[in-house]
Amino acid sequence: MMDIKAYMQNMGKEARAASRLMARADTVTKNLALTTIAQAIRRDKAELLAANKADMEAARANGLEAAMLDRLTLTEKSIATMAEGLEQIAALADPIGEISDMKYRPSGIQVGKMRVPLGVIGIIYEARPNVTVDAAGLCIKSGNATILRGGSEAIQCNRALAKIVHEGLSAAGLPSSAVQVVETTDRAAVGELITLKQYVDVIVPRGGKSLIERVSKEATIPVIKHLDGNCHVYVDEDADFAKAVRILENSKAQRLGTCNTAESLLVARSVAAEVLPTLAAMLTKNGIEIRGCAETQVILPEAKPATEEDHYTEYLDAIISVKVVADVDEAITHINQYSSQHTEAIVTENYTHARKFLREVDSSSVIVNASTRFADGFEYGLGAEIGISTDKLHARGPVGLDGLTSLKYIVLGDGQVRA
Amino acid sequence: MMDIKAYMQNMGKEARAASRLMARADTVTKNLALTTIAQAIRRDKAELLAANKADMEAARANGLEAAMLDRLTLTEKSIATMAEGLEQIAALADPIGEISDMKYRPSGIQVGKMRVPLGVIGIIYEARPNVTVDAAGLCIKSGNATILRGGSEAIQCNRALAKIVHEGLSAAGLPSSAVQVVETTDRAAVGELITLKQYVDVIVPRGGKSLIERVSKEATIPVIKHLDGNCHVYVDEDADFAKAVRILENSKAQRLGTCNTAESLLVARSVAAEVLPTLAAMLTKNGIEIRGCAETQVILPEAKPATEEDHYTEYLDAIISVKVVADVDEAITHINQYSSQHTEAIVTENYTHARKFLREVDSSSVIVNASTRFADGFEYGLGAEIGISTDKLHARGPVGLDGLTSLKYIVLGDGQVRA
Repeated sequence: MMDIKAYMQNMGKEARAASRLMARADTVTKNLALTTIAQAIRRDKAELLAANKADMEAARANGLEAAMLDRLTLTEKSIATMAEGLEQIAALADPIGEISDMKYRPSGIQVGKMRVPLGVIGIIYEARPNVTVDAAGLCIKSGNATILRGGSEAIQCNRALAKIVHEGLSAAGLPSSAVQVVETTDRAAVGELITLKQYVDVIVPRGGKSLIERVSKEATIPVIKHLDGNCHVYVDEDADFAKAVRILENSKAQRLGTCNTAESLLVARSVAAEVLPTLAAMLTKNGIEIRGCAETQVILPEAKPATEEDHYTEYLDAIISVKVVADVDEAITHINQYSSQHTEAIVTENYTHARKFLREVDSSSVIVNASTRFADGFEYGLGAEIGISTDKLHARGPVGLDGLTSLKYIVLGDGQVRA
Repeated sequence: MMDIKAYMQNMGKEARAASRLMARADTVTKNLALTTIAQAIRRDKAELLAANKADMEAARANGLEAAMLDRLTLTEKSIATMAEGLEQIAALADPIGEISDMKYRPSGIQVGKMRVPLGVIGIIYEARPNVTVDAAGLCIKSGNATILRGGSEAIQCNRALAKIVHEGLSAAGLPSSAVQVVETTDRAAVGELITLKQYVDVIVPRGGKSLIERVSKEATIPVIKHLDGNCHVYVDEDADFAKAVRILENSKAQRLGTCNTAESLLVARSVAAEVLPTLAAMLTKNGIEIRGCAETQVILPEAKPATEEDHYTEYLDAIISVKVVADVDEAITHINQYSSQHTEAIVTENYTHARKFLREVDSSSVIVNASTRFADGFEYGLGAEIGISTDKLHARGPVGLDGLTSLKYIVLGDGQVRA
């Protein structure tokens, strides 16, 4: 039997050593690794498809559910997308070594900050081979070492991808242990990884709520995570109704299963009777079920009743909860109570209400007159996204390359000493 | 018997509610609270001294050690300093609501960040009444609510200070539960506080290593902390020797017991024979004992031998470890292995060596040609300091008001939806 503890300890040790070399790697070197991996992925398309086929057959034999099988599937197109993703990461500006805010102090020293890698990042995810490549790419560009633990159903494909990633790192003169794939499917490996305090600086779980909850609960290492996206759209008394319809339709109906999809609609009392029927018609046209508060049901007799539980729920489905609120203040209070602090939008032409909403809503993204669906690393201009954090410590909102870095202070002097 | 769990739960609940009001408090209101508290501290000097006297008597009767008694002592001067500290915090710019990096995206939305409070901060510290006031002031200014748990030996004085803080909050129309002092001396209260996940966002332990270790180990909430300051000064082959003597003297001998005091000297081999005797003479003149590597001992026969353990040690005492290294590369490798990632300085006139040291040393402050003693919130221009973080997540280095805040994304649109 394999000694999982020793296996993971050794992996951690190797990752720590590799992280030192990655931290000092220059931009050209890191980009060479990324583009070499992209080319090798295209070259080895047949092997990757074969490995994926073996994974798929085993998964089917084990009765994996259809949605999981879907995410496990590699196609010619998804392989091309993986390669392109790496080239996009290569094209991003290198965050590492960036110096900012260098200011002279009365003592004569000049003080500022330099962006540095976090060190070693442990990434735990489901059986999605594309995450292996994407996560490896982001960690390489940000000068980190990484330990990747993907869902066991993708093990053949992940091994094949690991081989390609190592080839790219070696070609660029970087240590292949900068990206290590956990090769055992034993679940104990996850428990070890999330407690490897000495060697791993941060854990990023990517996947469903149960995975993230388990990891967050048991990890002794900081975790960058988000759990729910119970996002709200608030239609203010001074809303432009045409914008309200357009924004709610995009926020709720464009995609049902994403974390930045709206799950709850709030409407100001003074305009509820006027605007709710139009909004409801749009929702019904999109096949969305409405669960409303008592006031909503008076205006929309066809609406089902919303329970207290509904207001807390991220449906990820064709359902929306609706509540009539007194004004922007009650909307803010409701959101700060019920939302998961992911993303909330106000539709208003009122300057004071917009400013108040922006300041007082305690969520990772707060939006005026635009769809909640914009809460996304690419849409925000981060170029890539490792996840969306609803925590307040370290990274908040969409996490791009910068979220995998830290800032150290640097001081330049000419022999100054402290008085 | 008091139900500590219920007591702390209730405190957490109150703090969470207060944090909502603090987050939206404007600058004038927060500053009014701070200056009112400062005035009341001056006014109630006699009561504070009396409360402190009672604490001191009890502490002496319980045989508290001299250093702890010293930190517990309030004087007219230390009371004046507390009040001035609050006025200095009032004079700082308000970090909350600050908007940065607003950029237009191709979709037409404009995206940037707004600085927001963390929420509820739990601060655990030793029997130092001045920390009560300082921590309360920083949390008020940064729009956070706080739960303060000071050493039980200062309980009378902390109660008196809490009364004054509540008076100031009330005068400004802010909730007095924004600053709560744990009124029980039961140590179980600490255990409850550091696991109040639902109500407390971050824990800041301020005090000795054992306190910080205990808190870090048992907390289920993120902790902003630093443990050791095993700081290095590296004298490069291209060092200006006069600067080296001055910087080392200030780094090591100005104060022995601070975390930014140098504990280890590294010297490049090519200049060791030339510069070490001068540096040693300065150290000896300051009463500092030298513990050197084998090469050091050849140059300085009077030096004691340094063990492996010495190189890891933060002495906080009149001792320094000395090691001769080949060059800047070996210096960096040694530091990244042995230091506590607090603060390291290089003395050099060589541009390439300075640039390399700045980039590759993995510590929270990296300094060229200045004393390690500059690693300090006031010296860096933060205006105040809640501690120095040697972690990489969230805050790194001296933590000022900004370290008690987070950034949320804000988006301004005109009805945009995602394509």
